[in-house]
Parts: sequence; C-alpha cells; structure tokens
Amino acid sequence: MPVLTLLTDFGLRDGFIGMMKGVIAGICPQAQVIDITHAIRPQDVREGAFVLRRAAPYFPAGSVHVAVVDPGVGTSRGAVAVAMHGQIFVAPDNGLLWPLVQEALTAGQEVQAVRLENRQYWRQGEISRTFHGRDVFSPVGAHLACGVPLDALGPGIQPDDLERLPWFAPQRVADGWEAHVQYIDHFGNVYTDLDEDHLHPERDFRIRASGVKLTGLVPSYGHGQPGQIIALINSDGWLEIACVNGNAAQRLGLQVGETIYVEYL
Amino acid sequence: MPVLTLLTDFGLRDGFIGMMKGVIAGICPQAQVIDITHAIRPQDVREGAFVLRRAAPYFPAGSVHVAVVDPGVGTSRGAVAVAMHGQIFVAPDNGLLWPLVQEALTAGQEVQAVRLENRQYWRQGEISRTFHGRDVFSPVGAHLACGVPLDALGPGIQPDDLERLPWFAPQRVADGWEAHVQYIDHFGNVYTDLDEDHLHPERDFRIRASGVKLTGLVPSYGHGQPGQIIALINSDGWLEIACVNGNAAQRLGLQVGETIYVEYL
Amino acid sequence: MPVLTLLTDFGLRDGFIGMMKGVIAGICPQAQVIDITHAIRPQDVREGAFVLRRAAPYFPAGSVHVAVVDPGVGTSRGAVAVAMHGQIFVAPDNGLLWPLVQEALTAGQEVQAVRLENRQYWRQGEISRTFHGRDVFSPVGAHLACGVPLDALGPGIQPDDLERLPWFAPQRVADGWEAHVQYIDHFGNVYTDLDEDHLHPERDFRIRASGVKLTGLVPSYGHGQPGQIIALINSDGWLEIACVNGNAAQRLGLQVGETIYVEYL
Repeated sequence: MPVLTLLTDFGLRDGFIGMMKGVIAGICPQAQVIDITHAIRPQDVREGAFVLRRAAPYFPAGSVHVAVVDPGVGTSRGAVAVAMHGQIFVAPDNGLLWPLVQEALTAGQEVQAVRLENRQYWRQGEISRTFHGRDVFSPVGAHLACGVPLDALGPGIQPDDLERLPWFAPQRVADGWEAHVQYIDHFGNVYTDLDEDHLHPERDFRIRASGVKLTGLVPSYGHGQPGQIIALINSDGWLEIACVNGNAAQRLGLQVGETIYVEYL
Repeated sequence: MPVLTLLTDFGLRDGFIGMMKGVIAGICPQAQVIDITHAIRPQDVREGAFVLRRAAPYFPAGSVHVAVVDPGVGTSRGAVAVAMHGQIFVAPDNGLLWPLVQEALTAGQEVQAVRLENRQYWRQGEISRTFHGRDVFSPVGAHLACGVPLDALGPGIQPDDLERLPWFAPQRVADGWEAHVQYIDHFGNVYTDLDEDHLHPERDFRIRASGVKLTGLVPSYGHGQPGQIIALINSDGWLEIACVNGNAAQRLGLQVGETIYVEYL
Repeated sequence: MPVLTLLTDFGLRDGFIGMMKGVIAGICPQAQVIDITHAIRPQDVREGAFVLRRAAPYFPAGSVHVAVVDPGVGTSRGAVAVAMHGQIFVAPDNGLLWPLVQEALTAGQEVQAVRLENRQYWRQGEISRTFHGRDVFSPVGAHLACGVPLDALGPGIQPDDLERLPWFAPQRVADGWEAHVQYIDHFGNVYTDLDEDHLHPERDFRIRASGVKLTGLVPSYGHGQPGQIIALINSDGWLEIACVNGNAAQRLGLQVGETIYVEYL
C-alpha cells in the first residue's frame, strides 16, 4: 500500500480534503492516505514548507507527498513533482519544496524535477482555476502512488530553476547567536532556527527571549516546576523555549520572526 | 475497498468519530473510511446538506455516504438510505439529503429510498436514543459498504415523501439578480447561490456586496493585489466573492443568507 | 487489517500526528489507523483517560490503542503496554490507563502489563527526549498491531503498580446525590459522573445545576423547545444536562468539576 500524504492550508471544515481524497480513491484506491496537516495558516507558504520539511523524513521510502499552499492558483505559477530524499513531492512551484530541495542539493543528493503539464494525469473533466488541489495535485499524486513514472508527468526542469523561499537562519555574533522564532506549535512551544550542532550545548550560555533570561538547557518538558520557562533541544534537534505544563509563546508574547539571543558565558 | 464517507456536526474533539469508525471497523474492516467534514455547525442541517451535495460528486461510483446532522435524534424523525447518483446516502430523514434527491429527480434519474427499520443492520447491543451516528447510521453504512443490498434495510418509501429543506435560490430582477450568500469557507471566501449558467459571465455587470462594487470577474484568487476584493467563478461553478490573500467575509462583514446584487450594465 | 487507534493532546496543526502515522506505516503498513481524538486539552491526563475509556469499547477485539497525554515525557515516568478488555493499550504510565485498568480489575478480568524497555521495538535511530509519541509509543503500537507479543516489549509489572488517577465519583447524600461535571463535549452537553444504575430514573427527582431546576428526564435532545435546558441519560448511560439546539455548558456557565445536585422527591 503506497503512502500518499496531504499537507494544505485548506482546513477541515469545508470538505476540500474529503473531495481530494475522493478523487484519489477513484484513481488509486490502494493508496494509504495520511494527513500531515491542513491547518497551515492560509497562504503561508513558509509555514507549509517548514512543517513539510519537518515531517517528511518520518515517512517510508517511496512515499508521495502532495502539498498545497497555493495563493497563486490559476495564475502563471508552475506546478511540479520532485523526486528527492527517496520520496516524491507534488506541489505548486512557489517555494513550498525549496527547503527540501536545498537540503538535498547541499548534501549532493540527486534531485529530479518535472513540470506537471501532461493533462492525462490530471482529474478527468473540467479543470477549475481555483482548486488545483482537487483537480491537479491530488490526481497527479494518486497516479504517482499507483506507479506512474515521474517523467510521464511533464518536461523535466533543473532543480536550480525551482522557486526559492526566504528562510530564517541564525546569525553568529561576537558573543553568541541571534536566533529567530521559526515556528510556534499547538502547545505554545517556541522553535528557534538554531540547531544543536551550531549551539554547542556543552558550552555555558545564557538565552534571552522577550526579557526572560535562561541559563542552560533541561532534558525535557517535565524538568521544571509547572509554569517555569525552560529551554531544551527538541525532537528535531532545534533549540526550543517552552513552559512546563503551559504555553510559552503566550506567556512571553513571542511570534514567528522574533529574535532570541544566545550569549556564551 | 469500498469507500465510506462520514459527514457530521460532531466535531473531532470528543471521540464521537473514533467510536463510529470503531463500529465500522468491526462490521466492514475493508471499508476505506474518508471524512468529508465533522465541523458542520451544530444542528445546521442546511449547511450539512450544502457540503454533502458539493463533495459527493468527487467520490467514486458505489461510495456510501453516512451523513449525520441530527437535532431530532431519538424523536419520531425517520432514518433513511437513498440510492442515487450512482452512490448510496445514509442519513436522518430531515432534509439533509434533499438537495441531492431533488437534483436527481429533476434530472429524471432513478432514486431508490428505504427506511432504516431492520435492526439486524444496526449496532448489536443496546441502541442509545442520543447517538444514532454510532448505533444506527454507521453500522448501516458499514453493512452497505460490505454488500448488504439497500432493500434489506427496511421498507421502501417514495422519494417524494422524503423531508425537504428550504434552499437559497437567486431571484431574477429587472436589471440583474438578487443572489444570496449560501456558504462561507475556511478562507473567508463567500459563495453565492448564483451559478455561471444563470450569470452569463460574458455580459457586462456590476456586483454589489456589502457596500463594495465590483466590475467583472477575475480568473482566480491571485489575480489582484493582496487585500483586494475580487469576484470569480469558483471550483463548483458559483459566483464567489473573495479577497486576495485575505478573508472576504470578515472584510465585508458578510454572513450566510445576505443578499448580493448583480446588475447588468 | 489490525486496528490501531491514536489518542493524544498533540492537536492536528503541527504535523505531529502525521509523523506518528508515517512511523507506523513504515513498521506495520497494513494497520488500519483510526484517530480517537487529538484535541485532549494539553497535559490533561484525566480528560484523556475519560475519552479513551469511553471510546475503547466500540473498537473490535484485538485493537491496539496508542494514547499519549504525556506531560512527563523524558522524565523518569514509565511507559507501558497493558492487555485488558480484549484489547491492548500503549501509554505513558501516568494514570491515563487507570480507569480501564480499575474497571477490568474490579470485574475480575485479567490484566497483563509490561514496561516498554525493549528498544528493539522503538523507532530505529535517535530517540528524542520530548516526542515519545513518535519515537516510542507509535512504533510499539505498530509492532503490536503486526503481531509482536506483549511480553516481548519488556518486563512484566503488576497492574496494581500502575499509576493511578484521581477520578470523579458521585456522592450519596441524605436526599439524593451530589454528582459532578466530568466532561463537556463539543455541543456543550454536560456529562455528569452519575450513571443510570445509581440514579434510578424511575424515581421522582429534581436536578439542580447552576441555579436551574429540572424535573425528570427527557428521552433525547429533540424533546423540548429550542433553547430549553433538559436532562437525559446519554449514549454512555450517564446523566447529562443539555440544551435543545443549544450549548448547555455556556448557557449555565458550567465547568468540569462543578457539582450537580439530584434530590429525590
């Protein structure tokens, strides 16, 4: 049973995802469809790219990922399928796949990309100009999951020609790092863009976030008193600010993009 | 793998949907269960009917749809299964299926309806008076998905005897149309009840919605400046008011039922 | 297809559940994964225990339930798998399973419990200290669903040694009962901890809840005028306060833990 994932900003309220799954079931009934999320903030391509890049490595080799955060649907923006990291990704060409592409290219891995131009693998019937998630991306993903080869979907393009995305990166400064809030999760945990390898957690340092100073890291969320603000390395290897049994982002008033300072002592 | 969809107003918080899927898995483990939505506004039969009618055509022939928006559960309201449009629909007899029934009858298609009275196909054990989604509709849907014929479920009824539902319809007026907001989606896109065939988009017209005047249509959401209010034909063929990268319903203060004016020039 | 359910407080926004399902698909692709809920209030072990205990009986014999509400992740709290009620439950040892364990023990049923210490059945690769849902509980659940025997997972423990949970229980008083609000659902229906067997609904009684007095029970939600506050026995056999086509908890300002009085007349 091939795995086909869906990641969108469509929400679960209106039946959009049901329609996409209906189309998929009609083309590749044996696909095992798994939702990554449908709660990407509307039109927030960067957030979609972050969550997709984070989740994809936990899926089996050969998985097909259909990702649709697509403010440019129906305009001249392209649509692509990209084979990389042993999986295939189907998405609008608007930067949604860029972090994964960049990572693969940086690691010297093969990246094969095609434009979705062969209408034979789109939904049969009229193609809307406003819902390519249903009419283009889901059918293409379903055909891929059922064995259609990548190069049947349309002409190849160079990975370097794919749309790019501005991305947060920590800045090395004299006494440490200026990191950034790159994501805030459901629990209010604040993910920075500084990873364990750059931080060197074995050194002594102090973290400043929204007026709060933290010294050192704790191993996990339960290591502190309820309500205490803590810092830790999270399950993706990033420096994270959290609140024991509470919501750190709300407590500290932090939002995506704000700066977190790390000062070596 | 037969497709069985679920559409309810039960939400995803309390485990109601999990329980329904557990019951289905016990009766027809090979069914492929797909959620259309569980976020219909509590007791809003009209909204449920709208989303179901919109989504159903995208599912394969033979799909079984279990739809439960059921303020009258445990009263004398009936429960039915209806074969139409090449699929089967299971629901309380409260109008939830009426738009689909009406559409089929108007098109001269066959509609076969039965009352769910044969308790052999309900959940075994005690049947609650408050959760027929778990105890009646899901088990019946599961039995249908696994091959039980429609007429085994109970006595037939005439489609004309099914409960009806008040429905929005655009009014032709001297210089154009009085359309209505019939749905507002997750993005804040405002769906009217005026479809492309009635609008005649090739004519010149002006749209008035909540004090805003729009001239003509754009092809899709990206055709305008961020924040701009636009009108387009959406993926279901209806006239829609949207906001580029924004929420039109919030911006214009529009709600379901309000009037949108189309004036031919 | 073995059934594997998931119940967490992880929400559906961040991809946590997608990652867990990706890990499961890599280990036991034939498992049929069903979400019970992912909207348990963050860190609310009691609410998780309530929803799990309520939903589990509706799943087929042999189902594997993975439940993760885990404020102590990465601390010294244990992790367990427990075979009981003809099913298997995988969870942190923090009380989440206690109501089910207590119920089985009270009924004299067999309960077999093991600690999850055999890392062979955890996710291969680095194990995080903050996301055991992905790295421990899901892989263990997947292995169980695909046939790994319980005692392969780690050393056995006595059910009596499992962590317990404070639990609401109605108090018998001179003229009736002091019951408690133990859960409020998506519709605003207020579930008490008083069940039908203790209430003796055939007796005459009056219910006092937040200043409102109710005499007797109605059969179901539709038995009353819209907006009317009613009492009924719900689909789990508990006394429930509801509002016809409305939200009783909001109307009465009731919260979990508050007292509901039943006075026999």
